[in-house]
Amino acid sequence: MILDTEPEKAVVLLSGGLDSATVAAIAQSEGYQVYAVSFDYGQRHKVELEAAKRIAERLGIRHHKTIRIDLNGVGGSALTDTMIDVPDFIERAPADVPITYVPARNLTFLSLALGWAEILGARRIYIGVNAVDYSGYPDCRPEFIHEFEVLANIATATKENTPLFKIIAPLQYMTKAQIIQAGAALGVDYSETISCYSPSADGGACGRCDACHYRKQGFIDAGLSDTTRYAQ
Amino acid sequence: MILDTEPEKAVVLLSGGLDSATVAAIAQSEGYQVYAVSFDYGQRHKVELEAAKRIAERLGIRHHKTIRIDLNGVGGSALTDTMIDVPDFIERAPADVPITYVPARNLTFLSLALGWAEILGARRIYIGVNAVDYSGYPDCRPEFIHEFEVLANIATATKENTPLFKIIAPLQYMTKAQIIQAGAALGVDYSETISCYSPSADGGACGRCDACHYRKQGFIDAGLSDTTRYAQ
Repeated sequence: MILDTEPEKAVVLLSGGLDSATVAAIAQSEGYQVYAVSFDYGQRHKVELEAAKRIAERLGIRHHKTIRIDLNGVGGSALTDTMIDVPDFIERAPADVPITYVPARNLTFLSLALGWAEILGARRIYIGVNAVDYSGYPDCRPEFIHEFEVLANIATATKENTPLFKIIAPLQYMTKAQIIQAGAALGVDYSETISCYSPSADGGACGRCDACHYRKQGFIDAGLSDTTRYAQ
Repeated sequence: MILDTEPEKAVVLLSGGLDSATVAAIAQSEGYQVYAVSFDYGQRHKVELEAAKRIAERLGIRHHKTIRIDLNGVGGSALTDTMIDVPDFIERAPADVPITYVPARNLTFLSLALGWAEILGARRIYIGVNAVDYSGYPDCRPEFIHEFEVLANIATATKENTPLFKIIAPLQYMTKAQIIQAGAALGVDYSETISCYSPSADGGACGRCDACHYRKQGFIDAGLSDTTRYAQ
């Protein structure tokens, strides 16, 4: 059989973590040709970027770009500022935003992804935000994603008869366990993914931060084995 | 007299062009402590960034950052891709977006400015967009600025009783001549600013692109002398 049309393109934000790897697999399973984009924004967990590369290779994603943003000391987050310690997981009130929050991060990433999508002629952008097992970041909430979609269609040079941009957040209402089960069913190799905010140079996980907490519990709840090397 | 309160902070997008220099002077005249931000995004008119530095110095702006974004070949615009020629000015239909449009540029810049504002505790972001004498870019329109302001207040970790973010576009409905008159009245030295999309290495202007066209005409209409060195 010869395919007479190219599959539609979709841009996928790929961080190297568990969520975005699952999203990339979901986008592929929905028939899209995936254009993955990662961001090097001075995060202390840079082994993530290596993980993103391996995940893209494993999933057979041929188009993968890493955009570098040099924030030039803008700082303000434990994830980009080595003067601020990454805290251990604690239970927090829902309105409490932790110090690992990077101001306007998802907004910036989506903006750059949108620019690339416009150039590629892709109309869908996939992002692995999740409003269930997460750290309470404002730019992970459903209303943020919805408003971004509205803005995306105003910000761009959309021509008549062009379909609107859609921001797809398939994990939005899933628990971490459901995400892991969905990804495992699609063949995602989670041993390639890194969740830890403060991993060692060889990709080992601290086992103590928010991200490790949700990951550990997710595998337990999913009833699947977790091959992550946790320091504790 | 001793001031017992610090002036409120405002983030100003400063490109090195005529419009943003005027906006920085307006923000200062309104009593704000200006935090200027420029973006090095691989634009071919990099002399702009040097101009931004000189403008900040002249205006006595003490806080000025340049954030570098390495788009890693995302391309797609005559302003970032040296394989695409910057076209001469032509009259266009309003719906026509020229090749000098950089997809999602103002959205990305505003997103990064918002992140910095959130860290600084600034609630105002000034941007020099203009919907009169401009090139028809979708991300210069009033509805784009309005929607971004809505999104900014959803995207961020706003605490109770914190004032909302405001996106201020003071040039929105001004002609180029009115902008030049306003800036001149505030003492802006326009000889430091660069408008040209394709300037020479020493900052000389081509005299043929859209940006040169609007600048030339603006000075003529304002009845002020233009010290720009146009190649033609």
